[in-house]
Amino acid sequence: MSMRIPFDTVKETVKKALINAGLTEEQAETCATIHAQSSADGVESHGLNRVPRFVEYIQKGWINLDGRPELVGAFGAVENYDGHLGIGITNALFASDRAMALAKDHGIGCVGLRNTTHWMRGGTYAWRMAEAGFVGISWINAESCMPMWGSDEKGVGNNPICMAIPREDGEIVLDMAMSQYAYGKLGVYRLAGKQLPYPGGFDKEGRLTTDPGAIEETMRILPAGYWKGSGMAICLDLMAAVMANGNTGIDQDAAVGGSCGGCCQIFIAFNPYLFAAKEEVQAKINRRVAAADASHPEREGGKISCPGERSVATRARSMKEGVVVDEAIWEQVCAIAGGDLGVKDIASF
Amino acid sequence: MSMRIPFDTVKETVKKALINAGLTEEQAETCATIHAQSSADGVESHGLNRVPRFVEYIQKGWINLDGRPELVGAFGAVENYDGHLGIGITNALFASDRAMALAKDHGIGCVGLRNTTHWMRGGTYAWRMAEAGFVGISWINAESCMPMWGSDEKGVGNNPICMAIPREDGEIVLDMAMSQYAYGKLGVYRLAGKQLPYPGGFDKEGRLTTDPGAIEETMRILPAGYWKGSGMAICLDLMAAVMANGNTGIDQDAAVGGSCGGCCQIFIAFNPYLFAAKEEVQAKINRRVAAADASHPEREGGKISCPGERSVATRARSMKEGVVVDEAIWEQVCAIAGGDLGVKDIASF
Repeated sequence: MSMRIPFDTVKETVKKALINAGLTEEQAETCATIHAQSSADGVESHGLNRVPRFVEYIQKGWINLDGRPELVGAFGAVENYDGHLGIGITNALFASDRAMALAKDHGIGCVGLRNTTHWMRGGTYAWRMAEAGFVGISWINAESCMPMWGSDEKGVGNNPICMAIPREDGEIVLDMAMSQYAYGKLGVYRLAGKQLPYPGGFDKEGRLTTDPGAIEETMRILPAGYWKGSGMAICLDLMAAVMANGNTGIDQDAAVGGSCGGCCQIFIAFNPYLFAAKEEVQAKINRRVAAADASHPEREGGKISCPGERSVATRARSMKEGVVVDEAIWEQVCAIAGGDLGVKDIASF
Repeated sequence: MSMRIPFDTVKETVKKALINAGLTEEQAETCATIHAQSSADGVESHGLNRVPRFVEYIQKGWINLDGRPELVGAFGAVENYDGHLGIGITNALFASDRAMALAKDHGIGCVGLRNTTHWMRGGTYAWRMAEAGFVGISWINAESCMPMWGSDEKGVGNNPICMAIPREDGEIVLDMAMSQYAYGKLGVYRLAGKQLPYPGGFDKEGRLTTDPGAIEETMRILPAGYWKGSGMAICLDLMAAVMANGNTGIDQDAAVGGSCGGCCQIFIAFNPYLFAAKEEVQAKINRRVAAADASHPEREGGKISCPGERSVATRARSMKEGVVVDEAIWEQVCAIAGGDLGVKDIASF
């Protein structure tokens, strides 16, 4: 069951919950804004839905509320930070802001953040860079949860990469994990009693299947594009570990600390107005997006769009009519916010 | 029919052919080396097999043999060049070398090359950066040849992205186009009378199919990962056009000039030894690759590998036993090299 709640109510409720979980007022304000925005954009999995798990991670000591990014080294257009297992959102916001500051001075800026925690919705940071007028690229390496192509056991992270292009009529933002479907999506289809639209992994006989429950059982989620998603996942892992001077995915497997505990994140910002006027660049982007969107649909009435365009439309509706929330999750978050539950009781969520 | 020819013979024959086609001795030496290396690594499609088409493009005036990269602008760690429709290989080699020079000074370097031509094997340039000790990332935007997801007409380029990690035991290099199968691969399967291992596009009824001929007929090749490859393709197009200050894919559609005529290419180099010793970084990379390769295979006797490892093995065999060439293509290239054919006759190839 889902319902719509005004954006400000969602944000303020999450903020109260996070203050109850031990965050400072400032930390809670920032994180609540990002969680509420993610839900408003239609990415509920890493918006409101993720709040109870975030609180659980704090409770378990997997997130260090006192951890702040510490400069490990700097050279030219590059900076390297240790996130000290601090809050994933505030660490990543800091790093993307630093990448943009470096890009202002050097045309391009790159920040490698090591030893951080889950950044929630991946697209947040590239989107932030695009909103500020930069081309943004970011990716992470995570613990193993997907088999390498040709293997039947988990061997690599479902590492997302994000790419964002500034556009005044709405940023174009790709936020793409390496598996065809996230585990969260499999659960959604299973609970709805539906088959996946396309094969999403292997069943216990090793056959490709559209049955979400069969894939959850084997944990053999399918890399997007078969060997392609698998190959890209391992390269993103290696590049993140090398560029952020931190853990690989298997180093994270060996540690304890939940999803993305101790992971590396890379933030690259590029100033697109170095050699051409902003109007010219924006006109080119708009022309290209318009042509893509005008592609002939395979089904009558179909609508082609570029990554991010639907999120912008969903956001507009959420701000007007309220943010879609799952009723059960909303109750959980309200309970944490209500103050009736102390931090010690939260682990039961 | 294929056979093996010594590497040096392949290279010298291609060199002679290219000199006959109008390249200088230096241009021909460079391009012949890259074409021969591509075939030696098992990427025949963009190695020897591509030589006749390269010569045809020169003949048609689509490649300007006098075109050299010209600096359009420079700012910090970023440079922008106009390729003046020069030779794709020499332009791209120049740009990747400049990206590395910038990375030496700034930690990261980014070169945007506009108005260039087909770079042949995409992996060449990221591989070059990794061989020189840099993390390398490169991508291009090409003319439309793949439908956007949900469309039944071509709307975006099959834009490849390459990622390379330096490794003394063999570089890890991803060279990945956005479609599940290249058009060249469809032809190979069709000629062999085989079905594709996985669906590679749509037939004229709009159904996903493994029949290569049916896909060639509709030109509806499938983006890798369905909506994922489509979304990434349009983002790579936009980022390339913006960062290289040049044509989008649709700008290329409007021009004449063969595959990738007037395209943009991006070259990013990153120094992985800024904040950690080389030995430490190399040990981490080796540990991660070894763990991936040790993944349990789904089929008995199966072998999991990281991108680039098979190329290195193929290269070693090619250098020892000779480079695999298609007999008919070899005869074509020998004929061009023989000097009996003038440039004016080459268009018939």
